[in-house]
Amino acid sequence: MSVIIAIDIGGTQLRVAVYPKDSTDPITIQRAPTHGMEDGAYDRLTALIDSVWPKEPVDAISVAAPGPLNPYLGIIIETPNIPAWKNYPLAKMLTERYHVPTFLGNDANLAALGEWKYGAGVGHHDLVYLTISTGLGGAAISNDVLVEGCRGMATELGHVTVLPGGPVCSCGVRGHLEAVAAGPAIAKYVSEKVAEGRASSLQGATKLSAREVADAAKAGDELAREAFARAGAFIGQATADFLHIFNPSIVIFGGGVSLSGDLIMTPIQESMRKNVMDPSYLDGLKIATAKLGDDAGLLGSLAQAHVRLARH
Amino acid sequence: MSVIIAIDIGGTQLRVAVYPKDSTDPITIQRAPTHGMEDGAYDRLTALIDSVWPKEPVDAISVAAPGPLNPYLGIIIETPNIPAWKNYPLAKMLTERYHVPTFLGNDANLAALGEWKYGAGVGHHDLVYLTISTGLGGAAISNDVLVEGCRGMATELGHVTVLPGGPVCSCGVRGHLEAVAAGPAIAKYVSEKVAEGRASSLQGATKLSAREVADAAKAGDELAREAFARAGAFIGQATADFLHIFNPSIVIFGGGVSLSGDLIMTPIQESMRKNVMDPSYLDGLKIATAKLGDDAGLLGSLAQAHVRLARH
Repeated sequence: MSVIIAIDIGGTQLRVAVYPKDSTDPITIQRAPTHGMEDGAYDRLTALIDSVWPKEPVDAISVAAPGPLNPYLGIIIETPNIPAWKNYPLAKMLTERYHVPTFLGNDANLAALGEWKYGAGVGHHDLVYLTISTGLGGAAISNDVLVEGCRGMATELGHVTVLPGGPVCSCGVRGHLEAVAAGPAIAKYVSEKVAEGRASSLQGATKLSAREVADAAKAGDELAREAFARAGAFIGQATADFLHIFNPSIVIFGGGVSLSGDLIMTPIQESMRKNVMDPSYLDGLKIATAKLGDDAGLLGSLAQAHVRLARH
Repeated sequence: MSVIIAIDIGGTQLRVAVYPKDSTDPITIQRAPTHGMEDGAYDRLTALIDSVWPKEPVDAISVAAPGPLNPYLGIIIETPNIPAWKNYPLAKMLTERYHVPTFLGNDANLAALGEWKYGAGVGHHDLVYLTISTGLGGAAISNDVLVEGCRGMATELGHVTVLPGGPVCSCGVRGHLEAVAAGPAIAKYVSEKVAEGRASSLQGATKLSAREVADAAKAGDELAREAFARAGAFIGQATADFLHIFNPSIVIFGGGVSLSGDLIMTPIQESMRKNVMDPSYLDGLKIATAKLGDDAGLLGSLAQAHVRLARH
């Protein structure tokens, strides 16, 4: 039985796993902190791969990485925490070293592909995925194929304008969804209102996070609930647009903020209903939360290997 | 040599053409006004098909129609000018009558498919198409495949929110691109400003159209230029979003308003540049106007027949 080596270059952890070709139960997983990889990232990665290299034939190495990358050329354009990897031909280097096909994909895209193949999206042909945490990422599967665009830079679903002239986004453009609805925007809204004198149990808190706001909201804090309602209204507005753009049969929400449950999902769904152009977009539409959790990166990589080997 | 019968159910004209399988030069074209098809639309359509029915074997009948329809089931949900066609199984009826496969597609989607196969989009794998006239329609091709969604209702690109709380769109939702940037919105902006007392050569005009505004703008009218600049700014903002969503290598603009040239294209391009999250989305991006003109419907139908026969 041949195997697939799946790699997840996460924000905090680097993980390398060996999967039997026909299974999602790994034979081995090795982990190392991503932190500290500023120097010698490639050597640390290959040492980890060497340490798990199996006796069985390896069909492919498949890598999930954050940040802009070109999945067709297997080049990392840049990635957080590893500043040395700029226009870095990772796939080619691994292929030359290990003599097996190597595939590289964007982490949000692969998380969606993982959900589609093994998680909440099984059986759906048209899927939209949104991950809401520190940033707001997205992916879409149309007719069973990942939407990647000519250079693999498609489905930056957090970077659509929902409030023209609004706050500046991490990308520099004003009014993007990420800038008004990701975790930091939720925390910032509360901080600003408290500074303006609004009463809240979060008064006096420094360096507020979306998680703390969620806890306060669950404990009944009015301002904290309002912050989630506001973010949810923008996410619902954008999601209605995504329904008109992709007409999916399922929308999957992942990321830390989506774990806040009704607090965020109720306003999202209310706003979706309000902003949809025709109720038929909602007929039979499934709204789900991501199932794969921490395994999304590895299982997404595994799914990518299967999809791309089938294309070969 | 076998042939394909292409049908374009346009707003004003119904056209039926016979194409040799390997050519875009029609053997015959027959036309009839769509107007007056309230009754007996099906009989008029089949009479037209009968009149061109060739001696050669027919591989397929392919139909382009406006309005919501289900391309998978070949059902017209509703279509302007033919109120009797509600949830109308046109493809099945034609297949049963003529004993050949019949395909049905949305006119904007098929215009894009036609441009991709025969027009401005030849050689591109990822394409966004926007048609700006009385309405604002769209289409996208991702990885050489039309984005259609689970029921064929995808890429309603005129129905994305660009101005939350803005004017009510034809679909009933506020602030959609169509409501602020299609032809009627351009004319309405001028009428409103004139009513507020702004000086313009269009003062006193009744039932203004976008074409009259374009003529005034070309003659130097300040308010008319401003109306196009405003519409272009919104279209550019939405197009930047579409670049982030589809990462196409070409954006094609069709429809009457896009024929206004620099008047609309310059503000669109300025706004795109301003709203794009990273200049790499513009690297090598081609901005084109539609090439097929009046033939878009028939050639789009022809393209659809080829694409769907290849899938069979």
